[in-house]
Amino acid sequence: MNEAFTTRIVTAPQPGGPEALRVEEITLAPPARGEILIRVAAAGVNRPDVIERMGFYPPPPGAPKGLGLEVSGTVLAIGEGVSGFDTGQSVCALVAGGGYADIARAPAGSVLPVPEGVDLITAAGLPETVFTVWTNVFEAGALKPGERFLVHGGSSGIGTTAIQMAKAHGAVVMATAGTPDKCAACRRLGADHVFNYREDDWVEGVKASGGADVILDMVGGDYVAKNLAVLNRFGRLVQIAFLKGSRVEVDLMGLMLKRQTLTGSTLRARSDDEKAALAQAVRAHVWPWVEAGKVRPLIDSTFALADAVKAHERMDSMAHAGKILLVP
Amino acid sequence: MNEAFTTRIVTAPQPGGPEALRVEEITLAPPARGEILIRVAAAGVNRPDVIERMGFYPPPPGAPKGLGLEVSGTVLAIGEGVSGFDTGQSVCALVAGGGYADIARAPAGSVLPVPEGVDLITAAGLPETVFTVWTNVFEAGALKPGERFLVHGGSSGIGTTAIQMAKAHGAVVMATAGTPDKCAACRRLGADHVFNYREDDWVEGVKASGGADVILDMVGGDYVAKNLAVLNRFGRLVQIAFLKGSRVEVDLMGLMLKRQTLTGSTLRARSDDEKAALAQAVRAHVWPWVEAGKVRPLIDSTFALADAVKAHERMDSMAHAGKILLVP
Repeated sequence: MNEAFTTRIVTAPQPGGPEALRVEEITLAPPARGEILIRVAAAGVNRPDVIERMGFYPPPPGAPKGLGLEVSGTVLAIGEGVSGFDTGQSVCALVAGGGYADIARAPAGSVLPVPEGVDLITAAGLPETVFTVWTNVFEAGALKPGERFLVHGGSSGIGTTAIQMAKAHGAVVMATAGTPDKCAACRRLGADHVFNYREDDWVEGVKASGGADVILDMVGGDYVAKNLAVLNRFGRLVQIAFLKGSRVEVDLMGLMLKRQTLTGSTLRARSDDEKAALAQAVRAHVWPWVEAGKVRPLIDSTFALADAVKAHERMDSMAHAGKILLVP
Repeated sequence: MNEAFTTRIVTAPQPGGPEALRVEEITLAPPARGEILIRVAAAGVNRPDVIERMGFYPPPPGAPKGLGLEVSGTVLAIGEGVSGFDTGQSVCALVAGGGYADIARAPAGSVLPVPEGVDLITAAGLPETVFTVWTNVFEAGALKPGERFLVHGGSSGIGTTAIQMAKAHGAVVMATAGTPDKCAACRRLGADHVFNYREDDWVEGVKASGGADVILDMVGGDYVAKNLAVLNRFGRLVQIAFLKGSRVEVDLMGLMLKRQTLTGSTLRARSDDEKAALAQAVRAHVWPWVEAGKVRPLIDSTFALADAVKAHERMDSMAHAGKILLVP
């Protein structure tokens, strides 16, 4: 098990557009204590990868080199101190970097068995969105059955997962999306009310339908004030990104009078121990929904690893609905 | 018990400065179902009274006429459906209005016995601050023993109570105040670190001492961004007023990355049932601290009811430290 491995990874040595991506080959050390090496079947492409490619999201210290935050595949090598995994086992994992690869390195606590009934490639679309939705909507947002849940970017990887998980939990689900096709995709996944933000006034629509108790937002900017305006008494607004900016002007009087809560989080900055605890919660609460067919990654498109540039062009186009995957 | 009562109340028929206050006499109906009439021994003067006097804080529907949100006194008459109280019993209560009076009307759920060891007049200084600090610092803020707590306006009624309650709970307590005397008052009450905001850079001071896990703020304005800057990972910022304004410009990136929470509440807008639940929590958790001498209202000054103008001048002067009381 002490052999070294060779893998392709994808990097952006000069930050920029999709064409900034380069495939390079590196030697990978054997798994350290507590680590697992995974022979990658597929890697998910996520918005933070794009931001990292543009040079605005420096990887945390100690992260494996290269883009990519989630993979599926088979266990290739197991470090010391790891139990519960066998070589060759089908797994999916959150990784701190280096997921766009032939072989990826993961802390064992972030590795989960592929749920029953999900194929190995599709499983690459699970970790980032499922972990993100669980920790933000269910832990930070404390969504309860019967409550009203709103997610923006309903047709994104996060959005499609959030719609299904909230429905599986018994919430009333509202979503925004930017085209009729994307709105239809949200409805097919179970969203009760869908608003085309280019055509509808979603603020009025959400208010008229009864407001929101929990909102998952990655837009920021002027959406912060709008979200607070549609949030019910005791409502929770959870920020997971700021595509329109994090510097906002907002009147907090309503937040105080309606006793609302504004919070947020990111996944990548968390310690391995935090991710391991989250993985166990996901396995206990979300895997049964996946195995019951209530939560499925919606796959937009699949590209070869060598075509990472095209995968990023697809994400930058904003035309996709669901996950974009890379297959080595 | 069906007799009507006559009482003086204090109103501000034309909003304005302290001189806008008028004493008038009204007839009070007997207590309705679930209500208690209290012969007032003393009434607390609070910041919301000042804002109401200025015309910016309309009383909630159904509130008794006149200023005043807390009283101490003796039970004068008991409405139907109320148990657990005897006529003549010493009590203190949160009231929805009309506390500056000879006789005040309170929902029975908001009435508590005067804690052992506190005299009847001083007890008027308890309800508003103790209820406010409990629900915001301990319920919304979830302050835990050993955590670092910061309160602004440390020498105010809320501030002096918050310092003592947080210390009684085992927190490390930091406070800001505006004069050396006020800072000394905060230290005497147990604050571990006190910053004179006119002379010290409290942002640097709080950061250097280890940051804050929970902040209770009534300032708002530019304090919102400063509070978020000194708030630790998983920190909670709770707004109970906006003396410097609620429309703020703030960068929420740190809130997301540090997984902070921004929330707030007001007391007066709550339903009688919510106040009753809060009263029971206060009785269970805070009354023992009061009876053990760990939490005492700090009384700044006492005025006759007819001198309500002077009491408001005192509050507007910002020279006070602790509670201002009115005695009929």
